[in-house]
Amino acid sequence: MADPASARGVVDRTIAAIEGLDHESVAAVAGAFDAKVKPRHSLGRLEGLAARVGGIQRTSTPRVDAPAVLVCAADHGIATTGVSAYPQEVTGLMLASFASGTAAVSVLAHQADARLVVADLGVIDPPALHPRWAPVLDRRVRAGTANSAEGPAMSLAEAELAVAHGIELAEELIEAGADLVALGEMGIGSTTTAATLTSALLDRDPARVVGAGTGVTGEALAHKVEMVDAVLARHEDVEDPWELLAALGGLEIAALAGATLACAAHRVPALLDGFISTAGALMAWRLAPGCADAMIASHRSTEPGHGMQLEALGLEPLLDLELRLGEGSGAALAIPLVRSALALLQDMGELADLGVGAGPEHEHDG
Amino acid sequence: MADPASARGVVDRTIAAIEGLDHESVAAVAGAFDAKVKPRHSLGRLEGLAARVGGIQRTSTPRVDAPAVLVCAADHGIATTGVSAYPQEVTGLMLASFASGTAAVSVLAHQADARLVVADLGVIDPPALHPRWAPVLDRRVRAGTANSAEGPAMSLAEAELAVAHGIELAEELIEAGADLVALGEMGIGSTTTAATLTSALLDRDPARVVGAGTGVTGEALAHKVEMVDAVLARHEDVEDPWELLAALGGLEIAALAGATLACAAHRVPALLDGFISTAGALMAWRLAPGCADAMIASHRSTEPGHGMQLEALGLEPLLDLELRLGEGSGAALAIPLVRSALALLQDMGELADLGVGAGPEHEHDG
Repeated sequence: MADPASARGVVDRTIAAIEGLDHESVAAVAGAFDAKVKPRHSLGRLEGLAARVGGIQRTSTPRVDAPAVLVCAADHGIATTGVSAYPQEVTGLMLASFASGTAAVSVLAHQADARLVVADLGVIDPPALHPRWAPVLDRRVRAGTANSAEGPAMSLAEAELAVAHGIELAEELIEAGADLVALGEMGIGSTTTAATLTSALLDRDPARVVGAGTGVTGEALAHKVEMVDAVLARHEDVEDPWELLAALGGLEIAALAGATLACAAHRVPALLDGFISTAGALMAWRLAPGCADAMIASHRSTEPGHGMQLEALGLEPLLDLELRLGEGSGAALAIPLVRSALALLQDMGELADLGVGAGPEHEHDG
Repeated sequence: MADPASARGVVDRTIAAIEGLDHESVAAVAGAFDAKVKPRHSLGRLEGLAARVGGIQRTSTPRVDAPAVLVCAADHGIATTGVSAYPQEVTGLMLASFASGTAAVSVLAHQADARLVVADLGVIDPPALHPRWAPVLDRRVRAGTANSAEGPAMSLAEAELAVAHGIELAEELIEAGADLVALGEMGIGSTTTAATLTSALLDRDPARVVGAGTGVTGEALAHKVEMVDAVLARHEDVEDPWELLAALGGLEIAALAGATLACAAHRVPALLDGFISTAGALMAWRLAPGCADAMIASHRSTEPGHGMQLEALGLEPLLDLELRLGEGSGAALAIPLVRSALALLQDMGELADLGVGAGPEHEHDG
């Protein structure tokens, strides 16, 4: 487990190992699809998806046989200002739901035959877990962040430690065989933190980033925007990305940034979930732009800031089903799509075997 | 197997059994989701999808444990006018690919743990199948349709028999346990036939229905539009839907219309694929409007006419991945989404178990 003294070294070593997409593998997968028993390009974005996994894994025969879902949880000091409909205690209660298997992400990870790992980066009230439940890994940096409207959410050392924990969590999954890591999160107050980070990193008007997509409307929405404005005003002189992360939080977003960097360094696709998961990816991209090559966007959340993040990262999501749950639920839902794209690459026959030429880009139906 | 003398009776009996959506079951599923351990409505369209399956199956506890994919294949006389990039022989060759398991739909059905059944409604060159391959069911009505630009594609009796075959194919699957039927097709020339049927049934300008979505561009596209115009002009006096189906074809589209009617009559979701599969659904809807309640749209194809069909049927597709392959590939790809939506309904816990109220429609992250 990362310790505070070596945390920055872990991060620097990880960033140094990021190579980016292997364009030869991308081209090889695309070429393999052109020979398949179908009109050219008729499998649409599934062909590009398989090619991207090939480019990330640096092979013309990419596989996702052992996907994992990593959920990082923590509390947010900003939640004490009334930006959420739920009290902070719900973060801990949801850990119990993940561990007992009753949460949405638990069900969807099971459906996708994916291993689910949950880590506590700093929940205020960690729940007592039944001995027969799945474990929650203790990677607690502190018991929730401080209120970022009044001062830094955490110290620079704490931010580095949270990122290093995320790197090592992903590395443990990858060492155990994970060939795709879906990234999820839990933490009351996290959309507010994600909105401040997104506004700061992309220089956007908080009123447009926060939006009404959360279901917060009227005065509650206005208050949430005010709080994001206040947080940004409090830290307006901060430019260094590490200091920004420490100033704004959150602990689980920092860990997700680390997990994204680790995926990129180890040639493993990082399957992003919604607004908060992608805020972590955006932070990772700010630290090491090349890591965006390892990302796959699972779905488009109803949060307007999510679209801005995806655009900045150059990602087009696979699904658009009006999800706004978080937890990694959208990412887990998309795992079968990724596996299907790769199964087509692996298992489809070739036109030549049927004695048919590849032909132009027509439908073979028509 | 349906025989010509009783075909119309089979159809009439099926249509008479269609009840439409059970709104009590829809409401019960929606209510069950409101109690789940998540903010209200945060699973977006997955909640509505599960509720729709509940309404179709007429139960508050819908299940899809044994999905099936039914692929109907036939040849189109209009293909002899040069509207397709492939010769008609490819239809038969693709049957060999389905039977041997190398086609896209074979791979995707396997990924979805779905039974794949392929039926020949009238392929010109049925292939010799290896004894170890999957069977292709012989439901041949005639060896391809006639050229609809010169006369009726088939007789009224042949159209009735093809629809009755589709009904009985779906009924055989349902009797064997299928609780969802995904509908696919194969037939060189079929997008042209689907475009004529869609233009006629929805009274749309063929130039807008055919579009460039197939990859046909320039002169080839202009020729395809001309042929659709010519077919419609040849049969402009036909108004009765059965006579329209006989005039325009095709055999596999007629069978898919029958399969859709059978799904609706037996309370089984009909998971539509792309432009041709939905042309069959549109024909079924013209014969019995209530059957649209049993349909689920899997994806939005790149064919512009597909969007018009979906709008007429009141369907919003689950996926939009620029697929244009047919075969039922998009429908098979969407089966895991349907199963995930139902797994969430079956397996998620309730907020009350955590001691948390349902709250307003906020994200619990934010």
